[in-house]
Amino acid sequence: MFTGLSAFPLTPMNEQGIHENEFSRLVMGLAEARVDSIGVLGSTGNYAYLNAEERARVAKLCVEHAGPVPVVVGIGALRTRDVLVNAENAQQAGASGVLLAPVSYQKLTDDEVYTLYETVCSSLSVPLCVYDNPGTTHFEFSDELHGRIAQLPQVRSIKIPPVQDDIAVAKERVARLRVVIPNDVTIGISGDPAAATGLLAGCNAWYSVIGGLYPETALALTRAAQAGDVQQANALSVALEPLWALYREHGGSLRVAATIAELTGKVSQPCLPQPLKTLQGDARKRVGAVIEALSLS
Amino acid sequence: MFTGLSAFPLTPMNEQGIHENEFSRLVMGLAEARVDSIGVLGSTGNYAYLNAEERARVAKLCVEHAGPVPVVVGIGALRTRDVLVNAENAQQAGASGVLLAPVSYQKLTDDEVYTLYETVCSSLSVPLCVYDNPGTTHFEFSDELHGRIAQLPQVRSIKIPPVQDDIAVAKERVARLRVVIPNDVTIGISGDPAAATGLLAGCNAWYSVIGGLYPETALALTRAAQAGDVQQANALSVALEPLWALYREHGGSLRVAATIAELTGKVSQPCLPQPLKTLQGDARKRVGAVIEALSLS
Repeated sequence: MFTGLSAFPLTPMNEQGIHENEFSRLVMGLAEARVDSIGVLGSTGNYAYLNAEERARVAKLCVEHAGPVPVVVGIGALRTRDVLVNAENAQQAGASGVLLAPVSYQKLTDDEVYTLYETVCSSLSVPLCVYDNPGTTHFEFSDELHGRIAQLPQVRSIKIPPVQDDIAVAKERVARLRVVIPNDVTIGISGDPAAATGLLAGCNAWYSVIGGLYPETALALTRAAQAGDVQQANALSVALEPLWALYREHGGSLRVAATIAELTGKVSQPCLPQPLKTLQGDARKRVGAVIEALSLS
Repeated sequence: MFTGLSAFPLTPMNEQGIHENEFSRLVMGLAEARVDSIGVLGSTGNYAYLNAEERARVAKLCVEHAGPVPVVVGIGALRTRDVLVNAENAQQAGASGVLLAPVSYQKLTDDEVYTLYETVCSSLSVPLCVYDNPGTTHFEFSDELHGRIAQLPQVRSIKIPPVQDDIAVAKERVARLRVVIPNDVTIGISGDPAAATGLLAGCNAWYSVIGGLYPETALALTRAAQAGDVQQANALSVALEPLWALYREHGGSLRVAATIAELTGKVSQPCLPQPLKTLQGDARKRVGAVIEALSLS
């Protein structure tokens, strides 16, 4: 489950609630494209902005519409108590796995983060992916801590932040992590612009934002990298450079992906929880122009 | 209300719930000491870890036990929808004011933060203090943005992060902010170690963690600074240097203050929401030694 393309759909919503039909259609599209897994309620799915009941409902809808594709549910929350509730609800919904980031308000210590994973794992009957995303959690994992957490039997994957563009540097980074974790714990790359390099550097999975909107495009890149076709994987990523440039300009993928979804009619507008906003004005027009120029599916 | 000493009590809790009696006793101690205001559900009060019902209950308990002292309630949340609920509950509880930080999971833009304050202010009938705490919110206010937000009629104060130790530098920092905000919007200093310098540099209030445990100690420092007694204010702060050193060592005041409260029997152990932990082992012993050596009340 924690290998290949894991596609992360948006959770379209407004201040009144979740757009369930739109969400279900996004999931059905991913299932039809036969992505390797669906990562629901990731950062792209705005898990942190939803309450426990909404999250349980989204997990259930996703499993119902994912067909045979395994569903991984984000269970992160500021408080361990709430993570445990989300974990139980995800399992009840039929999740095949869960994704847990050490979300913080007060900066967390290594000991606190270890205990969080230990506590949650002891209550789990499905595998867990450690979600390492310092850009949103403001927690920096050391490799030593990754090594300790990865010994917990429920931990089966680590979702790492973007590797550097230089393939040699990326390979070294993946290798450094690889030696401190069990052989059967996979490493997955995050940050779409780093996907090709990450996969070619030895990552086993791509936890993908663009895969949540354009699964065939993301699958083509993933399959090329998995086949060792360096040239093709890189070419497919380079072709998406105008999109990566928009990510860089707007502080990450979320607002760009949500704007694309609105512009292409996949979701209604607005689709993000306030205070978050999709791009407006000139920035929105430029996103539209990039999407029109690229041939995505 | 947003001048002088605003004391921020802990919200003692464990995984089962809030220790209401302990909390009420903390508040009564602050009321008896006649602090200028009580800041409940600040970062010290772990607002971010409690749900809306718990926060409404804590606000109500605080108002009930604060006597004539005005109560300011923290209403921050990741989602605007939840901030609005917290604001309404705080007002229903009898809050004299509210405190709002732009809490983030996805990094926020200036435009998003402005709209958040605008939206919340339009629903408020009590004054608001802007809570600028990049250490927990990961949002950096520009003075330009502070100036725009401070024009909203409900905004009556800004709680700023620590100023530098150098009084000349601190005065410049306060003066730079002062010129861009209305005259009757107060500036309050955060970060106990910077309190004396902040007040002497022109801040109108001290939003105080140690004041939530030792109100008389904090009042003495506040009154000295308000009277322009530079020597006395600085001497009182210097005397607390062993405490400030513990804050620096443990990434801020929360874990130190919570450990003190446990060690002195003001709250039962544990008092923090998991995954947060109070200090244990050697660090805990050193906190005990510092508190024993200082004469706090």
